[in-house]
Amino acid sequence: MAFLFVTPTWPTGLWKAAMTKVAPKLDVRIWPDGTGRVEDIEYAAAWLPPPNVLKGLPNLKVIFSLGAGVDAILKDPTLPDNVPIVRVNDNDLTKRMTEYIVLHVLMHHRQQRRIDANQKQRIWDSFPTHAASALSVGIMGLGVMGQDSALRLRDLGFRVAGWSRSRKAIPGVECFAGAAEFNAFLARTDILISLLPATAETDGIINRTTIQKLSRRGPFGAPIIINAGRGRQQIASDIMRCLDAGELYAATLDVFAVEPLPADDPLWVHPRVTVTPHIAADSDPEVICAYVASQIERHRNDLPLFNLVDRTRGY
Amino acid sequence: MAFLFVTPTWPTGLWKAAMTKVAPKLDVRIWPDGTGRVEDIEYAAAWLPPPNVLKGLPNLKVIFSLGAGVDAILKDPTLPDNVPIVRVNDNDLTKRMTEYIVLHVLMHHRQQRRIDANQKQRIWDSFPTHAASALSVGIMGLGVMGQDSALRLRDLGFRVAGWSRSRKAIPGVECFAGAAEFNAFLARTDILISLLPATAETDGIINRTTIQKLSRRGPFGAPIIINAGRGRQQIASDIMRCLDAGELYAATLDVFAVEPLPADDPLWVHPRVTVTPHIAADSDPEVICAYVASQIERHRNDLPLFNLVDRTRGY
Repeated sequence: MAFLFVTPTWPTGLWKAAMTKVAPKLDVRIWPDGTGRVEDIEYAAAWLPPPNVLKGLPNLKVIFSLGAGVDAILKDPTLPDNVPIVRVNDNDLTKRMTEYIVLHVLMHHRQQRRIDANQKQRIWDSFPTHAASALSVGIMGLGVMGQDSALRLRDLGFRVAGWSRSRKAIPGVECFAGAAEFNAFLARTDILISLLPATAETDGIINRTTIQKLSRRGPFGAPIIINAGRGRQQIASDIMRCLDAGELYAATLDVFAVEPLPADDPLWVHPRVTVTPHIAADSDPEVICAYVASQIERHRNDLPLFNLVDRTRGY
Repeated sequence: MAFLFVTPTWPTGLWKAAMTKVAPKLDVRIWPDGTGRVEDIEYAAAWLPPPNVLKGLPNLKVIFSLGAGVDAILKDPTLPDNVPIVRVNDNDLTKRMTEYIVLHVLMHHRQQRRIDANQKQRIWDSFPTHAASALSVGIMGLGVMGQDSALRLRDLGFRVAGWSRSRKAIPGVECFAGAAEFNAFLARTDILISLLPATAETDGIINRTTIQKLSRRGPFGAPIIINAGRGRQQIASDIMRCLDAGELYAATLDVFAVEPLPADDPLWVHPRVTVTPHIAADSDPEVICAYVASQIERHRNDLPLFNLVDRTRGY
């Protein structure tokens, strides 16, 4: 039995070392050069696998998606039909996403950019501020991550709502569901957060029409967006247009249609845009490997796997 | 019966309007020009009152300290001995302090300054990060504010401890108490936060000796300080020296010995110092006034007052 990493864009040495550390008995191999006999491979962990690599493993029993989003796996047109896919969604990844969301909501709420600009000019300006309860935060996507972010923002005093495909119930959080309630969700939202998976339905969801439906009653007079979902969800040219038209106050973006974000992209230099390099829920290789190793152990002991992906839903 | 604001350094028009809005029947007066007959004044709210002003009110029954710290009142050498002082410590003020503490802990933890600098140069650098559980946060001062900050940081996954004069018990937070446990508290702390009141014992507590006792085992190799207590607690020259000697990684300061911080102060321009203009718990005048008005109402109905100051302790 062997385990294979299929991560063409990642520093594989680091990952092999991490997996060997947490599972010293596992036969860890790295595609392409270290693959060895394909018949040995029963478990594989992948990110952006090239076509035919996973398909070429005749005894593959489980595929692990390295990251909370599975779009990087599902886009493989030759993905074997009958092999279960496990989404890595450990508590560490969730905590890191929550940190990112709380940090960037607070940076907007407390006007930290304005304070930074004042510091550069040595200006002591204690402008009036508002309470967290004056801000309505709306989270698109109420999976494990969305729920955790919602609870922590609620505890800080924000008015929090969430929107998801199927209705959720979260104490102290207003839950909207489905296409029919999308407009009502947007209309009450001052800060819109995306933690949605990448699916056909969510592609381009952050567009000018969506932004124009957001609340303008918040303390900044125009809404704010934070995208930590997937870059395909935002129409970057619409975001720029809305910022310049005053229809959007500011944007914090961790994900982009093309990553790394090209150096000539105007998002880098817009004064109201914060660009972060897809690090919102960047987890520790050892933590991810420990999760994968524990799931392999469960599978070998005939125990059910956690976080199985529904390929039809796309997450 | 009348109520007097004694706030020489504040925009009194704003405060009079706020109090009139929340307590329309109250006879609201503003020192000095609007004081009127001193015999009428039974309640006063003050911040940095000049000597002899409060003393000159023969029928004064309660003094309200506008802000969570009472040092601005207690430094009046002519303060009447027999009048109770009520500290404003409403939930809004606490929430705002917690927002500030959580924001600035997360900014350090998630290396937002490094990401900001990269954005300016259009550099996409997804450097490795650490989990919140890798950071030990230590809060000096476990009053209402310190406790609330501790709970929210705990919920985000940080290892949280607190240090206070008398021992507290907070679930999931390691509580140290008194001078005897100060060194042990410092030795386990990567990020030191001050929410202490200004007293003789806390003056200059953030000095080079204290900084050198902090942990160096954290992910940044040197500790970080966040002072949202009082400026007198920090020796600014020691902070600068420790930063330049690599004994301190970074500092976020909301309070200063002299405020506004003079334009030629070197703290403004140090690359590892964040200066904020005493806004950590800057509350809404209407919220503060509503608190004061409700306490006046209680006093007039012979109900006990909340948050009475112990003048001997100094808070």
